[in-house]
Amino acid sequence: MQNVYLDYAATTPTDPEVLEAMKPYFTEFFGNPSSVYSLAGKSRAAIEKARVQVATALNALPEEIFFTSSGTEADNWALKGTLEKLRSKGSHVITTKIEHHAILHTGNYLEKVEGGSVTYLPVDGEGRVRLEDLKAAVTDKTILVSVMFANNEIGTIQPIKAIGEFCREKGILFHTDAVQAAAQLDIDVGALSIDMMSMSAHKMYGPKGTGVFYVRKGLKLENFVHGGGQEKGRRASTENIAGIVGMGFAIERMKVRLPQEKPRISGLRDRLIEGVLKAIPHAKLNGTRDDERLPNNTNFSLIGVEGETLLLDLDSKGISASTGSACSSGSLDPSHVLMAIGLTHEQAHGSLRMTLGRGTTEEQIDYVLEVLPEIVARRRSMSPLWEDYLKKIGEK
Amino acid sequence: MQNVYLDYAATTPTDPEVLEAMKPYFTEFFGNPSSVYSLAGKSRAAIEKARVQVATALNALPEEIFFTSSGTEADNWALKGTLEKLRSKGSHVITTKIEHHAILHTGNYLEKVEGGSVTYLPVDGEGRVRLEDLKAAVTDKTILVSVMFANNEIGTIQPIKAIGEFCREKGILFHTDAVQAAAQLDIDVGALSIDMMSMSAHKMYGPKGTGVFYVRKGLKLENFVHGGGQEKGRRASTENIAGIVGMGFAIERMKVRLPQEKPRISGLRDRLIEGVLKAIPHAKLNGTRDDERLPNNTNFSLIGVEGETLLLDLDSKGISASTGSACSSGSLDPSHVLMAIGLTHEQAHGSLRMTLGRGTTEEQIDYVLEVLPEIVARRRSMSPLWEDYLKKIGEK
Repeated sequence: MQNVYLDYAATTPTDPEVLEAMKPYFTEFFGNPSSVYSLAGKSRAAIEKARVQVATALNALPEEIFFTSSGTEADNWALKGTLEKLRSKGSHVITTKIEHHAILHTGNYLEKVEGGSVTYLPVDGEGRVRLEDLKAAVTDKTILVSVMFANNEIGTIQPIKAIGEFCREKGILFHTDAVQAAAQLDIDVGALSIDMMSMSAHKMYGPKGTGVFYVRKGLKLENFVHGGGQEKGRRASTENIAGIVGMGFAIERMKVRLPQEKPRISGLRDRLIEGVLKAIPHAKLNGTRDDERLPNNTNFSLIGVEGETLLLDLDSKGISASTGSACSSGSLDPSHVLMAIGLTHEQAHGSLRMTLGRGTTEEQIDYVLEVLPEIVARRRSMSPLWEDYLKKIGEK
Repeated sequence: MQNVYLDYAATTPTDPEVLEAMKPYFTEFFGNPSSVYSLAGKSRAAIEKARVQVATALNALPEEIFFTSSGTEADNWALKGTLEKLRSKGSHVITTKIEHHAILHTGNYLEKVEGGSVTYLPVDGEGRVRLEDLKAAVTDKTILVSVMFANNEIGTIQPIKAIGEFCREKGILFHTDAVQAAAQLDIDVGALSIDMMSMSAHKMYGPKGTGVFYVRKGLKLENFVHGGGQEKGRRASTENIAGIVGMGFAIERMKVRLPQEKPRISGLRDRLIEGVLKAIPHAKLNGTRDDERLPNNTNFSLIGVEGETLLLDLDSKGISASTGSACSSGSLDPSHVLMAIGLTHEQAHGSLRMTLGRGTTEEQIDYVLEVLPEIVARRRSMSPLWEDYLKKIGEK
């Protein structure tokens, strides 16, 4: 059986070369970086090398890079740390309805527990935040705007530069969750007027359990993880050296490969999108088709099909895909992102996300295009929803 | 040159067999556990196996085990999560002056930012909390007692059972930071009336970047890391599968080895203690000499010697050791633990911690006993402090 992994947005395998680079830091150069002896010096040097690798990739300064345990932790830090630091100035935060739960649930926490108020901006039918909505939402108590760089479900890239410039002009801090985007795009934090940014190693062929929080030089937040003096006293706990080394190598390699990989992957993405829209009647592409879509993202609504069932059918053919956000499953509610772009419940439940990556080949895409239409046709033939839909649109 | 690592309390190398067990989860079984397809099922199964391994080691239930990114994160969760949940009942927390900074600095945060009040209990000259001090500190607003299981600097084991029973009787939650203890001792959370407990993989030959938070069944806290629905909705962010697998294997292996390792290591510890006290004039052992000392801990005050200088001298002989808590360096203040047990500044600055582990041999201890007295004598011969000390005690 084929083995076709199409869920690179959920997670990526660790690049074997990245793992090789990490290994010595488990067993050989394992010293606690806070210690004085030479073994510990090797750990410190490895961390600082990784910090330079990350900073270089983002056109940032090494001292602007803080290692965390995940993108989620970085998101928590951005929102909570800003509110706690700037509470005397205001407690209003603006974000969007299509953020990852790491932002949405942290926003809910700010409202419920920390006395903050949060505005969740709507998006247009392709998942794009409108600058005029942002402008209208700002009050004199607004301290932070957090808009994700690109959406994890539908791949829509936000107008980050315009948002960043607007916030900078208004003196409002701007955070972006770039967990998806940083694995696919060149990001220059300075050129985009970004104050804070979250990233994750495991979305870019690095290990799980390591993230990055970019904080613009001079910007002071309350800490999120309190304790020892690591990361210049700003993020406590013994450093995950191997993970940090992995993050540094992963982003460096990603940047090197990007000029070739981006056109290759977006070509395969377009082949998949066109194939699905052609072969499956009434298939709908969610998100945009222009340059403002992540090069590796596809997301379809296949009405008359139930997403989870579809995933199991695909799995039985060796294809790994997703419906809604993998990070947020456990809930049977339709994806908040798909609802925010105006889909019906039926469209959202019948959604299929396939996200491409390094291992994706033309043969794999063609295999999916061979298998998927048959599965959809079979499921639809058993589906009362599909019957109803055909009647509704007058095709039956 | 010899290579003698004697800082196992700061961190341990990852056991090569633990690393072997982790490896497939980087590159092969890398699926996001929240996904639906079979690859993700393997990740889920690996995490649940690790959860059973940890639960079994602690005589806990698997659903009482939550994986975190570190012991520090677990400590943050315990303190912040309890205050946020029980604020309507009270906001007084009792802890001790000799906790790790993960507790002390989180306590400071509760006071400074969250409107909590915190009592820091003193300890006796050997670093032990007195139950009567705890009893006297309790008010009707006390919601939490957090006392570390065993101290990371001087190895003193606290009367956890008595504290746990007292708290249970009073209806006050009891948390213990067992980051050091869990790597050295058998811990039965039920028998000790522990409500919450923090642990770390990298202190027990597992990887850095993974911790455990034990939360007694039925006990609900506010979450610390908000976001996706991982860990039954209680700890967000994509699971560090390899790290979690490493934690499970590490604790399982630790338990198997403990019956042999504990007497072996405590024998070497006693050899080291007796050797130092015999060979170095006016050497003082910090902490206790009875069963209430961690089997792998030694901590001396060598007056007339500066701790950092001593570490560099030892490093030049291939010996890795510590002065004060490695997790908290970056500060030149003498260790808060050593001050709390009543040492003078001079005694605290001249402190040397050597902590033993799996790789420690009798030959290594004898090598230290050969090298250390010479180094101390040489440094003392150059030290005006030592001169002053000898005059003060009338030996010069």
